[in-house]
Amino acid sequence: MAAISVIPGDGIGPEVVESALGLVDAFGLGLDVDVLDHVGADRYRREGVALGEADLARVAASGAVLLGAIGRPDLEHTGYVRDVLLELRYAFDLYANYRPVRLWHDRLSPLRDPARRALDCVIVRENTEGLYSGIGGNLRASSDHEVAVDADVNTRHGVSRILDFAFATARREVCLVDKANAVRAGGRLWQECWRRAAERHPGAATRHLYVDAAAMKLVTEPERFDVIVASNSHGDILSDLAAALAGGIGLAPSASLNPESGFGMFEPVHGSAPDIAGRGVANPFACLLTAALLLRHLGHDTEAAATEAAVAGSIAAGRTTPDLGGTLSTREATRAVLAAL
Amino acid sequence: MAAISVIPGDGIGPEVVESALGLVDAFGLGLDVDVLDHVGADRYRREGVALGEADLARVAASGAVLLGAIGRPDLEHTGYVRDVLLELRYAFDLYANYRPVRLWHDRLSPLRDPARRALDCVIVRENTEGLYSGIGGNLRASSDHEVAVDADVNTRHGVSRILDFAFATARREVCLVDKANAVRAGGRLWQECWRRAAERHPGAATRHLYVDAAAMKLVTEPERFDVIVASNSHGDILSDLAAALAGGIGLAPSASLNPESGFGMFEPVHGSAPDIAGRGVANPFACLLTAALLLRHLGHDTEAAATEAAVAGSIAAGRTTPDLGGTLSTREATRAVLAAL
Ligand SMILES: CC(C)[C@H](C(=O)O)[C@@H](O)C(=O)O
Ligand SMILES: CC(C)[C@H](C(=O)O)[C@@H](O)C(=O)O
Repeated sequence: MAAISVIPGDGIGPEVVESALGLVDAFGLGLDVDVLDHVGADRYRREGVALGEADLARVAASGAVLLGAIGRPDLEHTGYVRDVLLELRYAFDLYANYRPVRLWHDRLSPLRDPARRALDCVIVRENTEGLYSGIGGNLRASSDHEVAVDADVNTRHGVSRILDFAFATARREVCLVDKANAVRAGGRLWQECWRRAAERHPGAATRHLYVDAAAMKLVTEPERFDVIVASNSHGDILSDLAAALAGGIGLAPSASLNPESGFGMFEPVHGSAPDIAGRGVANPFACLLTAALLLRHLGHDTEAAATEAAVAGSIAAGRTTPDLGGTLSTREATRAVLAAL
Repeated sequence: MAAISVIPGDGIGPEVVESALGLVDAFGLGLDVDVLDHVGADRYRREGVALGEADLARVAASGAVLLGAIGRPDLEHTGYVRDVLLELRYAFDLYANYRPVRLWHDRLSPLRDPARRALDCVIVRENTEGLYSGIGGNLRASSDHEVAVDADVNTRHGVSRILDFAFATARREVCLVDKANAVRAGGRLWQECWRRAAERHPGAATRHLYVDAAAMKLVTEPERFDVIVASNSHGDILSDLAAALAGGIGLAPSASLNPESGFGMFEPVHGSAPDIAGRGVANPFACLLTAALLLRHLGHDTEAAATEAAVAGSIAAGRTTPDLGGTLSTREATRAVLAAL
């Protein structure tokens, strides 16, 4: 059994995955790696399927999967992204999307007030239900009377477990984000599960914000947040917003976990960035920080912490790709991190 | 027939509405005003209904309705907000939520880079469908097997008309925001309506962003946006985020319009702010800017522009309530604007 399966995917995916594998290699941990480099857009174009049963079996036979990026402009209006990315989340019931957001260097903050810059929070995003249920359809498609319905499905099972995960993750506070004042059925369920979860975890401070207010407060009082727990779609939006406030998605790692089975998928938050793919300029740091989450998940805490410190050091020294103000290529920025280990 | 009906509502609603009515009065336009000050939380508590048929008839008999704020903590988990605010949107089919966001003074921007501060955009939010349909319910409520479903309903009728409104509003570009890569039925409908709307309006530049990327780009490239068109829930989130980037919801006006009937509801984006209600410190500027939208809607363009200039002047002179850095009370800040007219 391979310790790690790897899906480099599309666009800059293979470039940043190369960096991450170089990092893992540098630690000499002897981790077996199984690379599935045929899973991607070309195969979807050709066969209508990018991730087959055999691929899922290989991924299942590993301890965790590292994914680069999935997506290509010509497949934008197909089910491609759903069929790979969401399929992996669903196949392994990876309900806990863990997205830590930290300002690695003051220089990277887009905020004016120094007192507001120190963002250090975790977005805990429910990853298997809500609007991502895939349930819905189009009545009278393409007619003037077309009606499209997508079901926002939330279950007590799903909501309770993600809230428990959020409380387990919290250092000081859990902030529930929802839209219970307008979206009633799910709102009622989240609110009730929230009250019960808070009773189960009497230690943590709690806070509740409607999603519109949460988006605002991420800008006006980002330093106040610790753990934010939200539905699939709210978590999607808030995690990109939080990443923007900490220097951009070039630095945002992500893990999709099933705490019960122990399986996890690790992917940078950024996409395949087709505009810069193949030019060797993609920022590898998000994928290196993702590798750090993966290493920690596999029990290699020292290596994970060393990676984070090395990335922080490279940023502080200005040894970065152009998106963070430096002049290095993907490989040079990776070497800078490896040298700083 | 009254020119304007007014629902002051709860919390700071009556305080900021007083400012707005003072402004309207100062112009001496002889507008009849019908104030429904019994519509609010007390009545909902007492009667279970805050906005009755007779109230709706009075509102319908006016040319437009000005609303202060609706909401009180003790009614947070009831249908109160839906029953007033959303009821008004639905009763008059006010499908076009128009939320202009402008940085009125450089000092108010939370952004570090001066080149990024000049936000001047309009969020055009679909206001009558999507996740706000109110369709849904809870199966096996309060049991371990509870399932909550809320329907995200989008119709070709609803999507086409809001897109047309967005194109009619645009000065240079319309940016569609959706989540078509994950939420398929509605995504497909919006995308198809979008292509057709763009054909109907060949003059405007177009752009498309997924909602997570849009939240990010509002932080990293806010100055690029002109008109953003989005679903009800995405528009809700993005308009608060944009407001935060332009100095906060203390400055954010909003109009909910039915372009065909000509009827409109005008309300500041902020809520009832129970924490500061009754203390005379609420920022009246959002409601004054809302009154400006209302005056423009009634054909009083000169007065609308004068109001906006006077608010901008008061901000520039530091004559504001404490939330914007000043020391004035609600009434003093209002007088400052009236004096600057
Ligand atoms: C109070 C709430 C239901 C409302 C909404 O989400 O529409 C408010 O946030 C707004 O934006 O007007
Ligand atoms: C590509 C897309 C479907 C995906 C999501 O919305 O989950 C991405 O934005 C993410 O956040 O991982």
